Amino acid sequence: MAKELKELTPRRVDYSQWYQDLVIKADLAESAAVRGCMVIKPYGYAIWERMQRQLDDMFKETGHYNAYFPLFIPKSFLSKEADHVEGFAKECAVVTHYRLKTSPDGGVVVDPEAKLEEELIVRPTSETIIWNTYKGWIQSYRDLPILCNQWANVVRWEMRTRLFLRTAEFLWQEGHTAHATREEAEEEAVRMVNVYADFARDFLAIPVHVGVKSANERFAGAVETYTIEALMQDGKALQSGTSHFLGQNFAKAFDVTFTNKEGQQELVWATSWGVSTRLMGALIMSHSDDNGLVLPPTLAPHQVVIVPIYKTLEQRDEIGRHVEPLIAELKKRGIRVRYDDADNKKPGWKFSEYELKGVPVRLALGGRDLENGTVEVARRDTLTKETCAFDGIADHIAQLLDEIQQNIYQKALDYRESHTITVDTYEEFKEKIEEGGFILAHWDGTPETEEKIKAETKATIRCIPLEGDKTPGKCMVTGKPSAQRVLFARAY
Amino acid sequence: MAKELKELTPRRVDYSQWYQDLVIKADLAESAAVRGCMVIKPYGYAIWERMQRQLDDMFKETGHYNAYFPLFIPKSFLSKEADHVEGFAKECAVVTHYRLKTSPDGGVVVDPEAKLEEELIVRPTSETIIWNTYKGWIQSYRDLPILCNQWANVVRWEMRTRLFLRTAEFLWQEGHTAHATREEAEEEAVRMVNVYADFARDFLAIPVHVGVKSANERFAGAVETYTIEALMQDGKALQSGTSHFLGQNFAKAFDVTFTNKEGQQELVWATSWGVSTRLMGALIMSHSDDNGLVLPPTLAPHQVVIVPIYKTLEQRDEIGRHVEPLIAELKKRGIRVRYDDADNKKPGWKFSEYELKGVPVRLALGGRDLENGTVEVARRDTLTKETCAFDGIADHIAQLLDEIQQNIYQKALDYRESHTITVDTYEEFKEKIEEGGFILAHWDGTPETEEKIKAETKATIRCIPLEGDKTPGKCMVTGKPSAQRVLFARAY
Repeated sequence: MAKELKELTPRRVDYSQWYQDLVIKADLAESAAVRGCMVIKPYGYAIWERMQRQLDDMFKETGHYNAYFPLFIPKSFLSKEADHVEGFAKECAVVTHYRLKTSPDGGVVVDPEAKLEEELIVRPTSETIIWNTYKGWIQSYRDLPILCNQWANVVRWEMRTRLFLRTAEFLWQEGHTAHATREEAEEEAVRMVNVYADFARDFLAIPVHVGVKSANERFAGAVETYTIEALMQDGKALQSGTSHFLGQNFAKAFDVTFTNKEGQQELVWATSWGVSTRLMGALIMSHSDDNGLVLPPTLAPHQVVIVPIYKTLEQRDEIGRHVEPLIAELKKRGIRVRYDDADNKKPGWKFSEYELKGVPVRLALGGRDLENGTVEVARRDTLTKETCAFDGIADHIAQLLDEIQQNIYQKALDYRESHTITVDTYEEFKEKIEEGGFILAHWDGTPETEEKIKAETKATIRCIPLEGDKTPGKCMVTGKPSAQRVLFARAY
Repeated sequence: MAKELKELTPRRVDYSQWYQDLVIKADLAESAAVRGCMVIKPYGYAIWERMQRQLDDMFKETGHYNAYFPLFIPKSFLSKEADHVEGFAKECAVVTHYRLKTSPDGGVVVDPEAKLEEELIVRPTSETIIWNTYKGWIQSYRDLPILCNQWANVVRWEMRTRLFLRTAEFLWQEGHTAHATREEAEEEAVRMVNVYADFARDFLAIPVHVGVKSANERFAGAVETYTIEALMQDGKALQSGTSHFLGQNFAKAFDVTFTNKEGQQELVWATSWGVSTRLMGALIMSHSDDNGLVLPPTLAPHQVVIVPIYKTLEQRDEIGRHVEPLIAELKKRGIRVRYDDADNKKPGWKFSEYELKGVPVRLALGGRDLENGTVEVARRDTLTKETCAFDGIADHIAQLLDEIQQNIYQKALDYRESHTITVDTYEEFKEKIEEGGFILAHWDGTPETEEKIKAETKATIRCIPLEGDKTPGKCMVTGKPSAQRVLFARAY
């Protein structure tokens, strides 16, 4: 029965249902009683915390610091940047009152007398409230750059939601920087998209394409949006992080100027950049399989679990004493290890539980192992087992964790490489896009052509890659000149 | 001019203005454009981050883990526990709509067609949404205990706000635990108030009284509220953290039962506990002086600052080379050190800046120090200076930081001890309460007497202390029996 409870819909049967099953059954998150919102459960949150900690370190290494800005944005602020309000107005949670009262029938109702003079918007992103604040912080070039980040919750009233991938409330970080020159701000926007790409590769074990968004897909209020794009196992792309060069748009909207070295007044240059709990979705869909989660060791809450196999409680205690020095040794090396000798669950149940939860390495020891000086080592990523000598096993485990990290990345990279093709004709494009994956093709650079392709194939331009083949050519649809191939896919 | 800009209103002139000046001028926080909300600036946030990290470690050491629950609470949830809604209804931010639209005149208005069926409350605290979630997590005694914490923002629509001490939105952590027995839940509530007391003593360097709240001051929905109470330099008390034994109140309201070991259905027992950015206010008001912040080394973003005193840039570089190994040595020891050789500010300006920001130790070196092998060491807590041998200075600094931590705590403890008195008559009470400080006095245990005292003296019962003198006596007001002296003060 336990097995059945844990069984996931296989990916080939229904990828979307597999994802939903896995998020629920691996105790990562669940839908909340509030429409479109989620509860991030302790196991899921432990993974997110590791992402946060690592990203935060990377931000600080690149000179950034944290701050905190208000949850609420006055409606008039949101309206100050025309493109920005256009982009966010349709999905805003609006606070209109500040008090409840008891109604004559004993129920609780909104107090009509406690109406706000100006409605407040629950932040969908914080450019407006932050640039209104920066106005007070910036007078001279000496006050620049400002390199703030904040970890926060934001709300976008999405109609179709999916755990981690698209929720009404989500957790994220948003960096908001202010600079004296255009060049410096552009450099910052590129620096941060590269920090995201490095993080994806080294910690999420996900290879990403780094590129520029087409005008259609740009952030509302940005001059240029940089993006990292990952490929999920169903052949669909997932935008996993963005970094925006905002030009002087928000400085203009909030009248933020500074005195430059020459004593002249200039508008300030801006960037913003963010990643969110959506990364949890990227992580799950990049590596996991029909048995459950596959976690890179960098992010796994437990990297190693040790399960004793015993007939009597005396034997259990004997195994416990035997592995004690190993546990101490692993902890000393900074390896997160769990010893599970709970007596109310059978080893088989534990094995499938830890498989579901994606623990990278599982050790099992029974009476015979004690006699022979051996231990069974199972890898989650390859689902393989080997019997090893118990002596020196800590070294082996440390090495294995590195190997697993590499292997998970390599597997994702191989998948992506074998699902990235180059096409030259629109006919071929329409055929191949049905198979999923990335397609590199020429495009004439116009929104019209992009929209036509989207309407006819559901594929969008994920990005104009910063690296790779820059050979010009002819648009596959119109035959007009194209500066370089761009990256198409169907996307989440 | 720089000096004037930084000058604070002295504490004796206007304590409240001194606090406000200090928060602003030391770059800790400022009022936001949204009524009652604040912006926590990078320097203030760096201190808060250190508090968070330390508390989070202490929670994890005591078996807790983090999770995340929604920002929004359906209005009907809040109403399910009668005392709870009574306590929070009057200060709720209410979301009623989920979309804006462009009006015919080009402005942006709330779209009347996008009205929510049920209003959502921005969480003032999360018991209701969490217990509604726990209902799905708890079936059997095997699912207990649940030991969740969350780091989150909450909103209480306070009418009179002050930076850090009382703001409409604030940051906090809220632990919410579920237990199979009354005893276990009571133990947990006491455990966590003691974690707060330990944290206050060892990290904030603030001595606190640990006790139980009277019924009047209890959390809305709690059976018992435990509190830590600190004494500020103006003689007013500050409630700095609370831990609640919630009995089965929320289990009843949300119908959360479990099957016990005997196979019977029982209601689950609960606790909740929290501290907030209010701790920043406690920290500032406990230790700082008319020159600025005084930070305990545990929480100071920079523990040591080194300022070179030079006439030529060559000399500056020489000093730079001289201190390089010291900086490396300090960093190796985990000491947070900053070397400030910026050429656009004079040493005197830097000295007063770091004094204002509360950096515990300041080193200054000039040409003569290089010749003599000396360095000037200044302590922020005592405002004293000494000339030390440069050799072996790292050891001295490490020791000094410990000493400063102890001294700051001892000073706060001495202040509190000299401002805590015992009185036996109400006459004396009324006289002494005007001088500020804690008063230990007998009380008959009734809300009526407590309210009379509050109305006549503005003093409240801060807590019924868990430790200390337990001798019974007679109420100073009514002469009725009193089980033990309780702690009175005027409070923030």
